[in-house]
Amino acid sequence: MKREIIEIAKRTKEAQYQLANVSVEIINRCLKKMASMLIKNSQQILEANRKDITVAEKEHKSKAFIDRLSLTPKRIKEMANSLEEIASLRTPVNEIIKGWTRPNGLVINKVRVPIGVICIIYEARPNVTSDCVGLCMKTFNGLILRGGGSSFNSNITIINILKRALKEENLPEDTFNYIPFKEREAINVLLKYCKEYIDLVIPRGGEGLIKIVEKISRIPVIKHYKGICHIYVDKEAEIQMALDIILNAKVQRPGVCNAVETLLIHQDIANQILPLIKKKLEKYNVEIRGCPLTKKIIPQIKSATLKDWKTEYLDLVISIKIVSGVEEAIEHINKYGSKHSDSIITNNYLTAKKFMERVDSACVYHNASTRFTDGYQFGLGAEMGISTDKLHARGPMGLEELTTYKYLIYGTGQIRS
Amino acid sequence: MKREIIEIAKRTKEAQYQLANVSVEIINRCLKKMASMLIKNSQQILEANRKDITVAEKEHKSKAFIDRLSLTPKRIKEMANSLEEIASLRTPVNEIIKGWTRPNGLVINKVRVPIGVICIIYEARPNVTSDCVGLCMKTFNGLILRGGGSSFNSNITIINILKRALKEENLPEDTFNYIPFKEREAINVLLKYCKEYIDLVIPRGGEGLIKIVEKISRIPVIKHYKGICHIYVDKEAEIQMALDIILNAKVQRPGVCNAVETLLIHQDIANQILPLIKKKLEKYNVEIRGCPLTKKIIPQIKSATLKDWKTEYLDLVISIKIVSGVEEAIEHINKYGSKHSDSIITNNYLTAKKFMERVDSACVYHNASTRFTDGYQFGLGAEMGISTDKLHARGPMGLEELTTYKYLIYGTGQIRS
Repeated sequence: MKREIIEIAKRTKEAQYQLANVSVEIINRCLKKMASMLIKNSQQILEANRKDITVAEKEHKSKAFIDRLSLTPKRIKEMANSLEEIASLRTPVNEIIKGWTRPNGLVINKVRVPIGVICIIYEARPNVTSDCVGLCMKTFNGLILRGGGSSFNSNITIINILKRALKEENLPEDTFNYIPFKEREAINVLLKYCKEYIDLVIPRGGEGLIKIVEKISRIPVIKHYKGICHIYVDKEAEIQMALDIILNAKVQRPGVCNAVETLLIHQDIANQILPLIKKKLEKYNVEIRGCPLTKKIIPQIKSATLKDWKTEYLDLVISIKIVSGVEEAIEHINKYGSKHSDSIITNNYLTAKKFMERVDSACVYHNASTRFTDGYQFGLGAEMGISTDKLHARGPMGLEELTTYKYLIYGTGQIRS
Repeated sequence: MKREIIEIAKRTKEAQYQLANVSVEIINRCLKKMASMLIKNSQQILEANRKDITVAEKEHKSKAFIDRLSLTPKRIKEMANSLEEIASLRTPVNEIIKGWTRPNGLVINKVRVPIGVICIIYEARPNVTSDCVGLCMKTFNGLILRGGGSSFNSNITIINILKRALKEENLPEDTFNYIPFKEREAINVLLKYCKEYIDLVIPRGGEGLIKIVEKISRIPVIKHYKGICHIYVDKEAEIQMALDIILNAKVQRPGVCNAVETLLIHQDIANQILPLIKKKLEKYNVEIRGCPLTKKIIPQIKSATLKDWKTEYLDLVISIKIVSGVEEAIEHINKYGSKHSDSIITNNYLTAKKFMERVDSACVYHNASTRFTDGYQFGLGAEMGISTDKLHARGPMGLEELTTYKYLIYGTGQIRS
């Protein structure tokens, strides 16, 4: 297995170098072909997916897990749409980010280029497979995919269909490759022995996976870690706006990383708003866990412990803490948050400014739901995931974040004196 | 020692958060004060440096090493000038990189922010100490410095002088801290146990140091690795320009990373140019090592072996290989180079274009010396070093590369549907 995985990585690197000879028009044509081939072969994909689901059901996986794993004709249509959309976007590759002329006449251009070969290690959702292929092709990156064991049949089937489109366009067949080994050891080999061929690893999945990847990787990693998102309701918040945003951020889709997990409520507004929050959330079966002060106002709730402030519920559960003001809210978020997405609800300009500047997260909102942290919602077209790291890429990773740059320097014989 | 180092890291992180309250005017005033204090206390710095040199001489360090370690009134003046120059530059922090409005009215701003706390692990040169302090202060980053044991007295003295300026401006005294332990174990503690407080590690020094840091760090690393730089002389090169550039890139300062180490010569021009290169370089005592074809033309030279293609001489030595054309040159560079700086000499537009696009290095030159890869030469004002990595920062790291970004999103109650 080790030898085979290293061989796959090496071939992907070679194919990526060849991509430099390909025009973006051909890439776009190929992406559109991939979209139509997914639709045309829906039946085959659904059959493979059925196999995966059967195994998952036998293994008594959770309903949420099986939902994430399941493909439907509608979801396959969405995968195809995503490829079409990527085809319609402008590639950031070869964009001249900056350019200037030095006093000695040297012309310096800072130009966007592909990163090289990217390795994505992900879990259940099979739609990630085609999204990543589309994004990496559009940015002239090679791609190595290692999906979760539960979606193995679905992923392999999707990859084989996409590879046919590659072949029809005469593109290098190793532009992307799926690692055909379900064993955990495969991840080890990729991270420890393929450093020469892989430029970046993106782990996307549960906390356990991310921690393992971070620990053993010899290759640079951009983590797509958990989202412990907060909403701070200031004393100068508009009550109805706060209620609407809280409800949206918690219940619209509780199982995702940009859903809110903790509410921080200004002490001066707590008496007024907490009963309303409780009423609204309980209508949607949200379990509330509160700090002692919160429990004084709405006693019929569970107690929040230290552990709650550090927990990404990904479920219809929310924790509430009463704070003395924006300073305490900022401190709490920077201490317990995951640098993902946090929001303040207030009509006070200076309070909002302080919050936005000081909260050390990828996305900081003023008077809006945290649920907007998403490549599509941001208008980036598509996303490889959401980085919670601070280097290279932060927040939604779109096409631009899948590039690096180099300097092209044009002279007429300049030497240094 | 472990407890003390972790404590230093923690205090630096806290100070960095406090920096957010400081205006850039005060930072600039402090930088200028630092510059004048370095000059005023030159004598004290020179005495400390004298101690370091005495030890280094006793330890029979190389002449080049002692040269790098040595401070003179002129060099201290340069350190002060560098701080003055940083003060005069615009800080990239809070720059709005991009901004747009979504159809739902959300206003998204992508804003530059400090990275956080940066740790630099470096070797001999004491001037790096004040440069890094200046760059990190200007970008509102905290800084932890760990210099080489040989420059310990010089570094501590410089740091103490700079800290006095901090105090006079009432800036947090832990804005930057020097690790006062000479033991190698100190590096271990920084990289393994200070992840919570340090956001980025920059190792700058010999290959051994960089490899150790990369291997043990739990914190993201941007490597400032060796420079195996190439000049490819195409068959359509202007001979005199090629000779001038080769001489400059090899002998103007051979001990630095952007000096050339390997020449690749087009076979059609080899007979004509090699004797001229030999004559020119030997006048400056450069030792030439050639491939078998090179030796056929200029036989009185040493043979180059595989090891030569992978070696950063940092000395008056150069290796020469004859190639069949630009394709072979590109292949050689991508195989044996260090992704630093490489140059093509040609008057053929298409050949140059191919070389510039395909060579996978931070800086690719057309008709110019590789010696220009440098923050000052690029017009960035100053540099933290030269990154040979591909993520986050590539090539000279100036102020901008010491920042990351976050998204500030302004709404009026938007929720996701």
